[in-house]
Amino acid sequence: MQTVQIVEVGPRDGLQNERNVIETSDKLQLIALLADAGLKRIEATSFVHPRWIPQLADADTVARHISNRVGVEYSALVPNKKGLERAIVAGLKEIAVFMSASEAHNKQNINKSIRETYSILSEVINQAVVAGIRVRGYVSTVFGCPFAGDVSIDDVTRVMEQLFKMGVYEVSLGDTIGIATPKQVEERLTVLLRYFPVEKLACHFHDTRGTALANVYAALTKGIRVFDSSIGGLGGCPYAPGATGNVATEDLVNMLEGMGIATGVDLHRLLAASSFMQTKLGRALPSKMLSFKQRGGY
Amino acid sequence: MQTVQIVEVGPRDGLQNERNVIETSDKLQLIALLADAGLKRIEATSFVHPRWIPQLADADTVARHISNRVGVEYSALVPNKKGLERAIVAGLKEIAVFMSASEAHNKQNINKSIRETYSILSEVINQAVVAGIRVRGYVSTVFGCPFAGDVSIDDVTRVMEQLFKMGVYEVSLGDTIGIATPKQVEERLTVLLRYFPVEKLACHFHDTRGTALANVYAALTKGIRVFDSSIGGLGGCPYAPGATGNVATEDLVNMLEGMGIATGVDLHRLLAASSFMQTKLGRALPSKMLSFKQRGGY
Repeated sequence: MQTVQIVEVGPRDGLQNERNVIETSDKLQLIALLADAGLKRIEATSFVHPRWIPQLADADTVARHISNRVGVEYSALVPNKKGLERAIVAGLKEIAVFMSASEAHNKQNINKSIRETYSILSEVINQAVVAGIRVRGYVSTVFGCPFAGDVSIDDVTRVMEQLFKMGVYEVSLGDTIGIATPKQVEERLTVLLRYFPVEKLACHFHDTRGTALANVYAALTKGIRVFDSSIGGLGGCPYAPGATGNVATEDLVNMLEGMGIATGVDLHRLLAASSFMQTKLGRALPSKMLSFKQRGGY
Repeated sequence: MQTVQIVEVGPRDGLQNERNVIETSDKLQLIALLADAGLKRIEATSFVHPRWIPQLADADTVARHISNRVGVEYSALVPNKKGLERAIVAGLKEIAVFMSASEAHNKQNINKSIRETYSILSEVINQAVVAGIRVRGYVSTVFGCPFAGDVSIDDVTRVMEQLFKMGVYEVSLGDTIGIATPKQVEERLTVLLRYFPVEKLACHFHDTRGTALANVYAALTKGIRVFDSSIGGLGGCPYAPGATGNVATEDLVNMLEGMGIATGVDLHRLLAASSFMQTKLGRALPSKMLSFKQRGGY
């Protein structure tokens, strides 16, 4: 039986783009529902400065009050040392750092050059590892940049090498603007797998152009077994015009389980979590399985 | 350069499920816009009895008034001899016949057993071919049935054999309820390609669970080069509860062109056609590229 690990990023990557502030208690309930559904890796919030992402200004409270379940890894996005300190205070055992393979996007997203970002992240990762905290690395714009257009595979490789050297245990390859095609996914992974072991790679697809599940399938054929997704298909990148939604966790689970790949996630319970979120947000979420369920189909 | 042929089924498979009646002139304009975009195969309407599909009660008028373009093949769905007569009167050069690989779905959909359907279609196809009309065959529920569940590959093969023997030039394999996974697509095609040449097969995926483009990609890897799709993602099967939408033509074109596969279709013009339809229907269509465009992304 093949298995896939799903990294649920809805509470962070999903909610960070919502304009209306969600109550902290609702965020905690969402995180609890996601764990109820069987998700074992949940990115719960972000310790980015509240000025940048007001929606996640309650990160400390959220991280402190998560009802930790045995066997579930909760993490948070951390941009710098201050963020790491907050994560440590909140008692998290895992964080994620992020940077872009594209100089232009990195500048726009975090107002730093790639070189400047290395020195910041190097310190963060080092301190985290010393504190016994696992660090995941996100690389954005792996398949294209909203500002620079094409991103060379050499640029991707270089950033990944640096992150692994600094001590991340896994790199998640982000299609930030949802522009990847399955052919490109296969081609890029073919190159990357010459340099990096497949167990250390994850894929993070956005469904802007409807290709996310096709890209997941292409990545599966290359041996990738860790995928990021967002409950209900929430999310997007605030600095990438028009970019929306991570692939919906329920759509991902449905496809994988339909292919006989075990995710450990209960689809019915997952749909309860996305129904909850849809009600709280008061608008239809992009998830296909949720909409299918609401038409009485599931 | 690889190429793919797209069979646009929006004016038929798409519109047949719309409750509000669309003006005949709007249908004709849609068909013209689709040809403007470069689509070379357009299923324009259906000669099913108006009692079954009131939306397409104007089939004769639509078929007669299509502004025929050189190089564009217009066709219509035909269920029986009466339908064929109407198609001949309207001057069509191509028709499509349909049946299901599942006895239960065939009964529900056309109130006939598979055996009874053979004898009807055999006559229709024979008369069409004699009249110089090309006949395409649809097989529904190739990947699963809303009533019977699993559909055996033997049942699929048997129906396809019969249709080819009767004289259809191509069989379109329908995932009527959008339940196929890319793995299943690969597996079924691997078997079917032992019996049938790849040039005679098309795939017709619905996006009910978000897997349509993933299924297209899987079918491409097996050599399929003809895909059905529907402008804006319109459509579904009225007799399959909860089943919605063919894969959107613009999402299909975007993915294929992004992979370097030529479709001959201009995406901007295609989006003009789906914008037109969205305005006429007064509701958001499922197309990802259309929604992306409307957010200023394309």
